[in-house]
Amino acid sequence: MGQGIDVAVSTVILALLPTGGEPGDGPGDEPGSGPGGPRLHLPLVRRTREPHRDCWALPGGWVRPEESLADAGRRTLAETTGLRPSYLEQLYTFGRPDRSPTGRVVSVVYTALVRSREAAAAQEGENVRWSVADDATGLAFDHDEVVRYALWRLRTKIEYGSIARHFIGERFSLSQLREVHESVLQRRLDPANFRRAVEASGTVEPTDERLTGGRHRPPRLYRAVPAPHGAAPPWEGAGPPA
Amino acid sequence: MGQGIDVAVSTVILALLPTGGEPGDGPGDEPGSGPGGPRLHLPLVRRTREPHRDCWALPGGWVRPEESLADAGRRTLAETTGLRPSYLEQLYTFGRPDRSPTGRVVSVVYTALVRSREAAAAQEGENVRWSVADDATGLAFDHDEVVRYALWRLRTKIEYGSIARHFIGERFSLSQLREVHESVLQRRLDPANFRRAVEASGTVEPTDERLTGGRHRPPRLYRAVPAPHGAAPPWEGAGPPA
Repeated sequence: MGQGIDVAVSTVILALLPTGGEPGDGPGDEPGSGPGGPRLHLPLVRRTREPHRDCWALPGGWVRPEESLADAGRRTLAETTGLRPSYLEQLYTFGRPDRSPTGRVVSVVYTALVRSREAAAAQEGENVRWSVADDATGLAFDHDEVVRYALWRLRTKIEYGSIARHFIGERFSLSQLREVHESVLQRRLDPANFRRAVEASGTVEPTDERLTGGRHRPPRLYRAVPAPHGAAPPWEGAGPPA
Repeated sequence: MGQGIDVAVSTVILALLPTGGEPGDGPGDEPGSGPGGPRLHLPLVRRTREPHRDCWALPGGWVRPEESLADAGRRTLAETTGLRPSYLEQLYTFGRPDRSPTGRVVSVVYTALVRSREAAAAQEGENVRWSVADDATGLAFDHDEVVRYALWRLRTKIEYGSIARHFIGERFSLSQLREVHESVLQRRLDPANFRRAVEASGTVEPTDERLTGGRHRPPRLYRAVPAPHGAAPPWEGAGPPA
């Protein structure tokens, strides 16, 4: 064809990290913002070449002719940050004709939710930083818009089981799950309403286990229900999407 | 870059149409299959050039350098079928390195649900046909996989308000809504369970109106609740997604 369109990938990797400069200290991350609990952070990479040299951007790069889109996402993420999430979910493809100043670039964006321990694998330094996701602005290309969309999708299509599995772990109390949702949404949730919504969702189920500790009535632990149809596109079968 | 990857768009347009050859009579559409009610159909286009000449394929084509991805989807759909749905939602981007025999092609796929009256705008003929979606196999490229994925997404991420709005209209009884879902899912649904699930979903709400007709207790009419956050990506704001 020779149509003059290039294909890139970018990744939005979200983790709930404590606020206050550790480990995130990226652009727009004002210490002390937020109510003090953990907030959604994402790794950004400083560009070392034009266009937008020295600007912060999402990790990413060009798709090689022989690799799949998801493989390109995994490779460029690992090359720039050292992160290797177990599963990347395709988020959206951005293709506005004017989104790059040096020619037409279509960018396929992948996303993943990772736990704070996994997030520590990102080699922070002069050119890689974790930023509070809501404060990440002034990024290269249309990456501000990409980040806004990733956050909008996470918050509006919120799925209790998936959030729990990716951000907490296999077993969790309903209070732990609610606190994670409060951090994601950045607002308080009514415990009784939250419990009803979670139970009606059918995406988490009670186990026979209870939280350990010295309490008189330790809270019951729940787990995410495996998605009945497989929650991932059939050909990506590697795991559950975010 | 000159990376040798071309960018195409394809569209999966789904409509609930009566079975039995009217208006769908596409490849794989065996008259008499299904339980007799309406079934999901999609328009297919016969390819007039290589590769896969004479095979049926999803409507689509190359993205022009100056047009957005959604505009390319709208243009190629109108050019090949005459269809102009009010809103196209981006479904997924398919990019397996071997998906086209003549070079690397990344295809951004858009989808829309249309009512049967809108579907009639497709100029059926030798090279355009409506096919029963579940029976559409043997298509060009990886389009079998694309159709399977579109159906999987519609059926697993089913959203009562959206299905109602796109397939029925502004006002509907719960029985009408259930019948549409039965056609989409191709199985019977228990009326009481369906009513509970719909009411719990918060995506439809009762109106003060009732179905007209001579019945003693005409059923109440419902309507779709507008999505609180805007259900579409902010920059696409044209309307609600499928």
